[in-house]
Amino acid sequence: MPDGLEHRGRERALALLAERFGPRFSRAPAVRAQHGRGEAWHPAQPPDAVVWCARTEEVAAVVTVCAEHRVPVVPFGAGTSLEGQLCCVDGGVSVDLASMNRVLEINAADLDVAVEAGVTRTQLNSDLRDQGLFFPIDPGADATLGGMAATRASGTNAVRYGTMRDNVLGVTAVMPDGRVARFGGRARKSAAGYDLTRLLVGSEGTLGVVTELRLQVHGIPEAIAAAVCGFASLEGAVTTAIETVQAGVPVARVELLDELQMRACIAFSELEGYAAAPTLFFEFHGTPAAVAEQAATVGGLAAANGGGAFAWATLAEERNRLWRARHDVYYAALALRPGAQAIATDVCVPISTLAEVVSATRRDIAASGLIAPVVGHVGDGNFHLQLLVDPADPDEMRRAEALHAAMVDRALAVGGTCTGEHGVGIGKLAKVAKEHPTAIPYWRALKRALDPDGIMNPGKIFAAD
Amino acid sequence: MPDGLEHRGRERALALLAERFGPRFSRAPAVRAQHGRGEAWHPAQPPDAVVWCARTEEVAAVVTVCAEHRVPVVPFGAGTSLEGQLCCVDGGVSVDLASMNRVLEINAADLDVAVEAGVTRTQLNSDLRDQGLFFPIDPGADATLGGMAATRASGTNAVRYGTMRDNVLGVTAVMPDGRVARFGGRARKSAAGYDLTRLLVGSEGTLGVVTELRLQVHGIPEAIAAAVCGFASLEGAVTTAIETVQAGVPVARVELLDELQMRACIAFSELEGYAAAPTLFFEFHGTPAAVAEQAATVGGLAAANGGGAFAWATLAEERNRLWRARHDVYYAALALRPGAQAIATDVCVPISTLAEVVSATRRDIAASGLIAPVVGHVGDGNFHLQLLVDPADPDEMRRAEALHAAMVDRALAVGGTCTGEHGVGIGKLAKVAKEHPTAIPYWRALKRALDPDGIMNPGKIFAAD
Repeated sequence: MPDGLEHRGRERALALLAERFGPRFSRAPAVRAQHGRGEAWHPAQPPDAVVWCARTEEVAAVVTVCAEHRVPVVPFGAGTSLEGQLCCVDGGVSVDLASMNRVLEINAADLDVAVEAGVTRTQLNSDLRDQGLFFPIDPGADATLGGMAATRASGTNAVRYGTMRDNVLGVTAVMPDGRVARFGGRARKSAAGYDLTRLLVGSEGTLGVVTELRLQVHGIPEAIAAAVCGFASLEGAVTTAIETVQAGVPVARVELLDELQMRACIAFSELEGYAAAPTLFFEFHGTPAAVAEQAATVGGLAAANGGGAFAWATLAEERNRLWRARHDVYYAALALRPGAQAIATDVCVPISTLAEVVSATRRDIAASGLIAPVVGHVGDGNFHLQLLVDPADPDEMRRAEALHAAMVDRALAVGGTCTGEHGVGIGKLAKVAKEHPTAIPYWRALKRALDPDGIMNPGKIFAAD
Repeated sequence: MPDGLEHRGRERALALLAERFGPRFSRAPAVRAQHGRGEAWHPAQPPDAVVWCARTEEVAAVVTVCAEHRVPVVPFGAGTSLEGQLCCVDGGVSVDLASMNRVLEINAADLDVAVEAGVTRTQLNSDLRDQGLFFPIDPGADATLGGMAATRASGTNAVRYGTMRDNVLGVTAVMPDGRVARFGGRARKSAAGYDLTRLLVGSEGTLGVVTELRLQVHGIPEAIAAAVCGFASLEGAVTTAIETVQAGVPVARVELLDELQMRACIAFSELEGYAAAPTLFFEFHGTPAAVAEQAATVGGLAAANGGGAFAWATLAEERNRLWRARHDVYYAALALRPGAQAIATDVCVPISTLAEVVSATRRDIAASGLIAPVVGHVGDGNFHLQLLVDPADPDEMRRAEALHAAMVDRALAVGGTCTGEHGVGIGKLAKVAKEHPTAIPYWRALKRALDPDGIMNPGKIFAAD
């Protein structure tokens, strides 16, 4: 809560912004509430005001005013983050970048593009399609590319194409002092100094506001085939995914749904011909011959691990239906317990430990009495839990937190991470502190160096000193 | 030059280190001279002393003493860097890590390893081979993995396997305050906070001493085939490389040697059956069917661009001979002008501009009257120039510098970088300043935050304030 002096400074800053942005400035409670949360269960913590920016220079103007008056700045894209990254723990100004939605350049010959931060991944892919290109990072939600960079998003295609870490060539950012800086460039590789592109990717708006991005894109493969395979056991499914990666098969997607999640999806997405069994969804990219060879190899591994026959989806329409169902797992799971909220969490572990870690987590779920389907980008050793809870029931919330903590502890014990792709936000502060005890003092030092007044998305990633 | 007070502090620090390290501490002039330079033309600037460390804790002890007495610390691996990264511009202590050469863990099932910083890439590959694994980053020199991380090394395999940026999962580093910190981890991906692993990779020892690394490794492909193809024109060779990448062929290596470099290699490495023509060296990795398919696609592209028949090397022995010749280009080029020194430099550009940039550079070479063969990792848009000069001839040095500057300016004009893989060191301070004018103030801020007294490899990457 701002004290008197600080309060007057904040009001002064808001007045300046109101004057400059006119109808693109709002303090309406509904607008503020909508900008104070992501898609997760974390209760909204609204900003004091929302400003819609259309250009990098406008973001710079907002940050300059906020820096002068020590007012928090929280960037807002599509509002789909999952760890409370958008909760304005100390109010401030939410900078809405959704109208910065221009695709600035498409260099088909170089497989790179320049976009404003508010472009969503589906918008970019729709612009790329007729040039035979696509942007592979797919976290499920139709997030903005700026938000995806800020949270180091990954998703279903990461096993082959990497994460935002690997596909952002450079960024333009408004830094905490209000100046505009450009990091990285168009070259595929560079040894020219400190990699601040990678420092900003995953920094969740705490070091600056990413306003433009240079991204690597990829040619749409000549052949794409998707297949679904049910297994007699969860272990058989996970082992198949592990062996696929270990064999070096360049699979484009390998997704695990446990039997509870499959049951939910069959009901929610009206899937026909599938059983409520542990299931892998695969996608193969390449030349027709390469796709056939990959599929044959993986089919052999699946059969040896208790998998059934592959159900193929080679037409784009069937594939889209299948992946739509995969993307809707969140809503499908929610439908398992109407009225419940979902605590969505994820960990990522060395793949050789995945079967053991998933199985132990499932035993914990059974013991907890909670409903919590498991979904995973298992080719990366990454899996998700959706804990369906009633936030008004303290005992249930305690059991959910104990289950969550055990899952993270188990991941850390095998050398994994407390968050494969959702980020830290306010949801995983304690967990990341456990994972990176010797690193965090240096994170803090960097934060203080770039943002001495701590105005950029305060309270995220690590607790204040 | 240290002033009186500083001089006494430095002598006190050296005395403490001499006492602690005994025979592993040296002030012998020959030892100091050898530790004051890399493989490039930059004249040696020796440290005041050299300390050989065997463990992370010993490096921490050295840095602690040096931090207390404000003495520069310059990490030393194999001494193969090319931009003066090892020149001790203010003396100080060279920390030799060559005896930190233990491979600590090989996790074949997870395709990751842990190594000490002094392990060289050939040592690691020799340890990995009987497990069917390899580490792909190959800058030519048998550098240490710590040095390769510090300079963000890449090389011939980067077009398929990425650079050190992509293959370092985590590091243990002694930070400028003497404390030991661990960044990253074993998970394939993580959204857990700031990516200090990527900040240390490429920081050239200016932010800390990397003492241990967690690396991603790869399965040795079932089939490997190398081919050499001569072209009627340089443009035809470059265009073939460009089209190969644009077609999405997952080629493992595609290396360009211009006719002068080929002439040098044929003489130096006694290659038989090759012509002194613009030439591409390819390597294909995959299943036998995938390798055959890739080779057929690339063969078609080469033929359409004036390329001759592929000369194949499928046996490991023939392949090694070929890549040995490729790695020896530096010495082969030096033999073109006995007694000359080589100024080795590289730039990296968007691949669609590569043919034009290389051709313009070759016109500049012709106009300069200098001897300067061109070699390139052209699949990444990265190429090298070796300027053979007599450093005692000021006019020649001026022409060499003008040629170098024009090459960099041309790369920057098309959105490229002044150094694809050699780093900045002291050799490219002005050029990187031109490339990253808005970024450097933030590099400085980070440097000051982590190393307020500026003891870690001073004078590198950017000029002091």
